[in-house]
Amino acid sequence: MAGIGVGLVGYKFMGRAHSNAYRQLPRFFDVDPAPRMAAICGRDEAGVREAANTLGWESYETDYRRLIERDDVGLVDVVTPGNTHREIVLAALGAGKHVICEKPLANSLAEAGEMLDAAREAGTINTVCFNYRRAPAVQLAKKLIDEGRLGTIRHWRAAYLQDFIMDPGFPLIWRLKKELAGSGALGDIGAHSVDLAHFLVGGISEVVGMTETFVKERPLEGSDGETGEVTVDDAAAFLARFDNGAMGTFEATRFAAGRRNKNAFEINGSRGSVAFDLERMNELEVFFVDDDADVQGFRTVNVTEPGHPFAGAWWPPGHIIGYEHTFVHTMKDLMDGIAAGKSPAPTFEDAYRCQAVLDAVERSVEGGGWTKPELGRI
Amino acid sequence: MAGIGVGLVGYKFMGRAHSNAYRQLPRFFDVDPAPRMAAICGRDEAGVREAANTLGWESYETDYRRLIERDDVGLVDVVTPGNTHREIVLAALGAGKHVICEKPLANSLAEAGEMLDAAREAGTINTVCFNYRRAPAVQLAKKLIDEGRLGTIRHWRAAYLQDFIMDPGFPLIWRLKKELAGSGALGDIGAHSVDLAHFLVGGISEVVGMTETFVKERPLEGSDGETGEVTVDDAAAFLARFDNGAMGTFEATRFAAGRRNKNAFEINGSRGSVAFDLERMNELEVFFVDDDADVQGFRTVNVTEPGHPFAGAWWPPGHIIGYEHTFVHTMKDLMDGIAAGKSPAPTFEDAYRCQAVLDAVERSVEGGGWTKPELGRI
Amino acid sequence: MAGIGVGLVGYKFMGRAHSNAYRQLPRFFDVDPAPRMAAICGRDEAGVREAANTLGWESYETDYRRLIERDDVGLVDVVTPGNTHREIVLAALGAGKHVICEKPLANSLAEAGEMLDAAREAGTINTVCFNYRRAPAVQLAKKLIDEGRLGTIRHWRAAYLQDFIMDPGFPLIWRLKKELAGSGALGDIGAHSVDLAHFLVGGISEVVGMTETFVKERPLEGSDGETGEVTVDDAAAFLARFDNGAMGTFEATRFAAGRRNKNAFEINGSRGSVAFDLERMNELEVFFVDDDADVQGFRTVNVTEPGHPFAGAWWPPGHIIGYEHTFVHTMKDLMDGIAAGKSPAPTFEDAYRCQAVLDAVERSVEGGGWTKPELGRI
Amino acid sequence: MAGIGVGLVGYKFMGRAHSNAYRQLPRFFDVDPAPRMAAICGRDEAGVREAANTLGWESYETDYRRLIERDDVGLVDVVTPGNTHREIVLAALGAGKHVICEKPLANSLAEAGEMLDAAREAGTINTVCFNYRRAPAVQLAKKLIDEGRLGTIRHWRAAYLQDFIMDPGFPLIWRLKKELAGSGALGDIGAHSVDLAHFLVGGISEVVGMTETFVKERPLEGSDGETGEVTVDDAAAFLARFDNGAMGTFEATRFAAGRRNKNAFEINGSRGSVAFDLERMNELEVFFVDDDADVQGFRTVNVTEPGHPFAGAWWPPGHIIGYEHTFVHTMKDLMDGIAAGKSPAPTFEDAYRCQAVLDAVERSVEGGGWTKPELGRI
Repeated sequence: MAGIGVGLVGYKFMGRAHSNAYRQLPRFFDVDPAPRMAAICGRDEAGVREAANTLGWESYETDYRRLIERDDVGLVDVVTPGNTHREIVLAALGAGKHVICEKPLANSLAEAGEMLDAAREAGTINTVCFNYRRAPAVQLAKKLIDEGRLGTIRHWRAAYLQDFIMDPGFPLIWRLKKELAGSGALGDIGAHSVDLAHFLVGGISEVVGMTETFVKERPLEGSDGETGEVTVDDAAAFLARFDNGAMGTFEATRFAAGRRNKNAFEINGSRGSVAFDLERMNELEVFFVDDDADVQGFRTVNVTEPGHPFAGAWWPPGHIIGYEHTFVHTMKDLMDGIAAGKSPAPTFEDAYRCQAVLDAVERSVEGGGWTKPELGRI
Repeated sequence: MAGIGVGLVGYKFMGRAHSNAYRQLPRFFDVDPAPRMAAICGRDEAGVREAANTLGWESYETDYRRLIERDDVGLVDVVTPGNTHREIVLAALGAGKHVICEKPLANSLAEAGEMLDAAREAGTINTVCFNYRRAPAVQLAKKLIDEGRLGTIRHWRAAYLQDFIMDPGFPLIWRLKKELAGSGALGDIGAHSVDLAHFLVGGISEVVGMTETFVKERPLEGSDGETGEVTVDDAAAFLARFDNGAMGTFEATRFAAGRRNKNAFEINGSRGSVAFDLERMNELEVFFVDDDADVQGFRTVNVTEPGHPFAGAWWPPGHIIGYEHTFVHTMKDLMDGIAAGKSPAPTFEDAYRCQAVLDAVERSVEGGGWTKPELGRI
Repeated sequence: MAGIGVGLVGYKFMGRAHSNAYRQLPRFFDVDPAPRMAAICGRDEAGVREAANTLGWESYETDYRRLIERDDVGLVDVVTPGNTHREIVLAALGAGKHVICEKPLANSLAEAGEMLDAAREAGTINTVCFNYRRAPAVQLAKKLIDEGRLGTIRHWRAAYLQDFIMDPGFPLIWRLKKELAGSGALGDIGAHSVDLAHFLVGGISEVVGMTETFVKERPLEGSDGETGEVTVDDAAAFLARFDNGAMGTFEATRFAAGRRNKNAFEINGSRGSVAFDLERMNELEVFFVDDDADVQGFRTVNVTEPGHPFAGAWWPPGHIIGYEHTFVHTMKDLMDGIAAGKSPAPTFEDAYRCQAVLDAVERSVEGGGWTKPELGRI
Repeated sequence: MAGIGVGLVGYKFMGRAHSNAYRQLPRFFDVDPAPRMAAICGRDEAGVREAANTLGWESYETDYRRLIERDDVGLVDVVTPGNTHREIVLAALGAGKHVICEKPLANSLAEAGEMLDAAREAGTINTVCFNYRRAPAVQLAKKLIDEGRLGTIRHWRAAYLQDFIMDPGFPLIWRLKKELAGSGALGDIGAHSVDLAHFLVGGISEVVGMTETFVKERPLEGSDGETGEVTVDDAAAFLARFDNGAMGTFEATRFAAGRRNKNAFEINGSRGSVAFDLERMNELEVFFVDDDADVQGFRTVNVTEPGHPFAGAWWPPGHIIGYEHTFVHTMKDLMDGIAAGKSPAPTFEDAYRCQAVLDAVERSVEGGGWTKPELGRI
């Protein structure tokens, strides 16, 4: 297994997520080539050096052109803001590298077209990180559709709802500037819904839409009192007709109070339906027209079975993905305990108490009556 | 930051979970000492060697005594079956090591007492891995209770429900033998509920219980036709009185059809209530008596905010813990694509289609009517 | 209390619902005038006679003109198919009667306008039965909005989903013919969503929409083999801009497999959100931006408190409206039991068993151990 | 159809519920004999006279003995507090009447036994109003069990949770006095759970339990400052073994903050499970072991289909029982409008607005663009 050297451009939120993926991948999946975390790249040297260390990269670069030149980098991963994708991706493709790029691929259709042309010319492997396609529950939905178990698809209904910029005092970050982000809710989160719709339902033949910017001026970052214009949409909605005759509704907003990251969709077919919500990403709601009439109803499928897509690589059924974080947190407090010289609860004493209760239950079962835990050592 | 060498004894399900925790901890939390994954230990050399490699350990041992002797091991982590905990833990404590042990601490109260004595004598750091205490939602419940926001606790109601051994053809694994496992559902999963009750409500003063073994004979592993006796409980239930006057009900079973790993509890206090279910571990249901009368109701709190316990170390609000696995899956298919010489979907072409839809929406917003995506390059 | 004579035109599904309302109203609410169920009207004499008897009307008519002429009828209630509303309503208004008309008021805007003119001229009381406005949970939503507790409304998101005509063998009933029904899902159920949006958010300034007829030919009723054309929409979706700047999405369909009558909406404002689903009509989901940061979440408000709109007239908190039907069903089986000479379960013997268990629990509490029910008489 | 005269003893909460049932029964079900609401009985003449009028009884009595003597009363319905059941029921049986009695049948096992003996001797029809047996979802659960679709039952898990007396200032009502009520949560709501368990699982062979009174002194009704002792349980819990080997857990409490009337149970069998919660009484959660492995999950069955027990008598699928109350509320506001001379919304003008929106959607579909409602008449 030779492995393939990865060069990651960018190291913020998505940089952390991609780094984690490269680290975790060979621990849970048997892959060949395995990714080698060759280098991470960012313009701020102090920042990228620390990121390399924290995120587990072997080295760092401060110029993406240097990264791309490196012989030990076979795959370039681009997680920078959308306005820089084109330049970096074109360079990477030009150097004959494989490329994975964060979504949206570009800030405009023209740019995306140029990048597609370059990818075709390069002939290397390319992919775009619309990561929600690979939630096990989404994969299960795809499987049901491909196997015809939902029949002919009639309806797609997507709402991707967030609320993180509702406060008018929230600053004018780069995501709110058209020249950097391309668009607002539409391109940032609506793009995910479009990709999921393409994946699950198929091509879209026409659309009609609306957008709105509810808060038009916001404080500049780091200024006191100065404000600037928000140049992207806060919310977008559109209707769509799919090539296969299905109807679609889409909504993307950052102004849905209480919906932190509700990436939800429902699909209705002639034989059944599915519904998904990222806030409960381990579940898929499934309905079948052919179920016995008296027990028809949406099933809440816990997509954590060994046979479910990707799920078998993680934990036993019902131990949802993410459950393993409880162990990380346990080790966190253990390390803090070692540092402080104080055993973190639950200590052996706590466990002894627990055992005493279990023991009392067993004695109660034998004796048939109320029984006190024996806590002689406490 | 000197770090502390960890020696892990055992490498199956819990070995994977603990290894993952040591690997991930320094990537998301700033800890000092940081754990160094010094050595993993198991009796089967081929198995433990592969585990060391897959799980990320620097070396391996085949005898836990050797592991404990090592100078570079400061912390011994015991994840073997319960009947071996005592021996290994006593040895580790005897060698002056810090110890973390999987639950239940021991298979009997006598053993647990002996281990507690040894821990007290050793004076090193000890802890027991009742990991569910450190689900962020459970920590939030604890915080609400400690701050008095639920008032006086009156009720604890726990049900830990699984269904993985319902098939009478499921084999007689070690967990179903009393000499190895100590007890069945009671000690395996009921112990978690007891620990959570201790953590959240307090000491238990008396109990009365019942147990049942529904399937009394099972096929021996690897035999054809031979069966053996199940010597532990399939299910257990008990009532409890807490020291503080609260009432408790507990149930643990492996025979609740459809409940894969439903570790659920509800607490009712004089000022409010909380409810938790591990199958939706990112949520806590919370009720307050003092809410305005017309809008009282259980709140579904998405425990993913920066201010929530542990949650801030992971992802933005609403991006539940576990969400990052979608990236791991993406990289899995990317590696497979590189191996196969075929770009995995969504390719640049797919992303171009997506961009074309976004572009059409924007043109529709400008033009006011139905608009077709421009897919010239497809 | 003089009362007011009601004349009901129509006696099918809506006729049953309105009759029930007149019968129940004075039993739970203190109204003046009280409705007197003077006469029901239908063209089929046998049918309307039986309906009068079953539904509790004092008399019947077979010609709506006769009904309207009657001196003892002060209020005319029109529940016929939409294509007949105009004629009947105009006649009733012309006779100086009060009028309540089922929705939609008319099959076309022109007709509705004519009816509005007539109503203004008549000067009597008029109303249209968009009944969902008066679900207690919807009223609570209205109250929260009117009191400013949701702040400025930004989003309205409605989906009214049914699935009753998905089978292509479902016949060509009147609701599927444009000349009788005016429109399909749009006018039948979409109209409810529009009315709720008007009620809760306000006026709509512009829309853009789409409709679809998935099954274009259906069997004629009562024929064998012959089919006819479906001339209304099976599904409709549209976007809307409200006068107050809010964005709206609407969808109405009869092809959402598994959604029997999901009349659902969500409203997002600057200070909070609400969500409603008729299939759980006793609940309103409510979110407030100003809740303490660590316990923010959608509250499931059980809208059954005495202080909730209309709810106080029915049953105690948590006894949802509809709960009383369990008593009707009990009396049903009691009457059948009397007819058959066989006591319906639970008989006194069953209740004796129940009492024996309660008694055993009490003795167990006293005695502290497992206790058998005393079933001496069984 | 001769009908049968009913005499109802008691006219408070349960009196209203039973009266409603007799009124509604013949409107929705075809019963023979039909109940005739002959007389209602209470000791306070003014109160019972008004109740007779409001609840729809032909006459009233102030002495239950007089009621029982009446020739036109064939069925005596007893809804008084539990301590009076015995006397009234014995008298009714002695007079050869059919009897329906509210639960619990008696305040003690001795009384219940005496009443059972009398019922056997009388030979008339008797039944006890454990009304929750006849929620359609509960009936569906029974059907699934009887048809063997859940297999062998292993677990019964019931929690009946209320919170209406949590405030220590809540007065010492009759339900809190042992001499009147017999017991507290145990007999009042726990009795329902026991009856449901008997109905669905079978006989109970032994129990062990606990009870608690959290608030031991409460204000006397109508006094200022004086308090009295609470002599019944606030909460009760017990374990049970069923005759068929199933395990049972029961809990009944009036101190579960936020749970208004959560009468919930879950049953796990070898082939499937069901779960019910009265606060969502139109739903039954159902799981089948034999479902395809990749789509197993609890189904939320909307128990409103024509084929579901009792449901067909009410409304179309998805129109949950209780939905009809929206019409009652509509008529309420209509009557108020007539009294006030003001048309209640939605008026014809509101409906015209609605029609204008529908019309605009249709024009938009034809024209393909954003379209304004034509509101010429507003």
